[in-house]
Amino acid sequence: MSNDASAEIGSDSGSTSERLARQIAFIVEIDKAKQVLRQTELMDGSRCENDAEHSWHLALMAIVLAEHAREPKLDISRVVQMALVHDLVEIDAGDTFVYDLAAHAGKEERELRAAERIFNLLPLDSAREMRALWDEFEAGDTPEARFARSLDRLQPVLHNYHTRGGGWKRHGVSAQRVRERNAPIAEGAPALWEYTRTLIDDAVARGFIAEN
Amino acid sequence: MSNDASAEIGSDSGSTSERLARQIAFIVEIDKAKQVLRQTELMDGSRCENDAEHSWHLALMAIVLAEHAREPKLDISRVVQMALVHDLVEIDAGDTFVYDLAAHAGKEERELRAAERIFNLLPLDSAREMRALWDEFEAGDTPEARFARSLDRLQPVLHNYHTRGGGWKRHGVSAQRVRERNAPIAEGAPALWEYTRTLIDDAVARGFIAEN
Repeated sequence: MSNDASAEIGSDSGSTSERLARQIAFIVEIDKAKQVLRQTELMDGSRCENDAEHSWHLALMAIVLAEHAREPKLDISRVVQMALVHDLVEIDAGDTFVYDLAAHAGKEERELRAAERIFNLLPLDSAREMRALWDEFEAGDTPEARFARSLDRLQPVLHNYHTRGGGWKRHGVSAQRVRERNAPIAEGAPALWEYTRTLIDDAVARGFIAEN
Repeated sequence: MSNDASAEIGSDSGSTSERLARQIAFIVEIDKAKQVLRQTELMDGSRCENDAEHSWHLALMAIVLAEHAREPKLDISRVVQMALVHDLVEIDAGDTFVYDLAAHAGKEERELRAAERIFNLLPLDSAREMRALWDEFEAGDTPEARFARSLDRLQPVLHNYHTRGGGWKRHGVSAQRVRERNAPIAEGAPALWEYTRTLIDDAVARGFIAEN
């Protein structure tokens, strides 16, 4: 990715060509998210989905489901941006299955190191903005982050329901654990939690998943 | 996706539960974009990428490369939204390789029919908003659409360069055709077109692609 003008280092944030080189390096690096597999299967059950697909799906869910956010006046474009970046750290840290408690050991540290490396490929100002989005999502303290986190929980439930149990069944996860795990959907989107409960109940009724 | 309350039909846009049922139907439907394969290979050349991955990548490129848009004050969140929806019609219409002119016959009509079906899964107001995003991208008449279209051209060039010719080589596309096809990048982002030209020249110099 050489650039003839890359020697002209200008302001603190670098010359245009230096900035562009760093932006492109980031864009090339994040291609790897297309190969980070999740436990969630595509809705036709043909294969597991990856982080890029999942993040795209979440971003569109944010737009389509915006009216169900608990806080009516939230900044949906920020929710969309969080959806797009929230799993980039998994390029280094890998996906951790939500029901696999043992795998969560060291997850936070692995993800912090990944955030340091990946966002810092960008020019400094841009790296800070991306990192702020990721930190906000992780902390879950703003209406936007709470809504994004609700969607991040709802999406796999939809997939598991439409694959007649999918990842839940493969890992022997009970309806009770699915309810416990997903109850925080109510924090960002009460109506979506009500809907999720009906899906889980229906999954039990149809035999996709056991109650306990 | 049954819902106990789905009989309560309220306002023009439907009751909350009816709206939610339609929104979820759309979210389930668009999962299919994860299986629409493009001619572009992942940057490590391991397989072709799909529309969901491509759209996610474009949306992040819009955020990261915003400063290179020709018009300095454009609405980046609209560019991001266009990136997310621009290829949904390919769920029905399939991907058309940009250098395959024969395949372009009937493309517009196929895509229009697809837009009618897919966006109309949503509640009416939301369907109109999504359709407006897609129409705007297709027409390319706003600064936002021009920038989104520039990114949609740049992204495959990056992939083809990083796979040492990738799809270009497989289809015997010359550097001259790549330049002709991608010159409109300048309409939305002059600096990105300059950069693209250096990549194409470098691809020729490294033997990834023939000049003619």
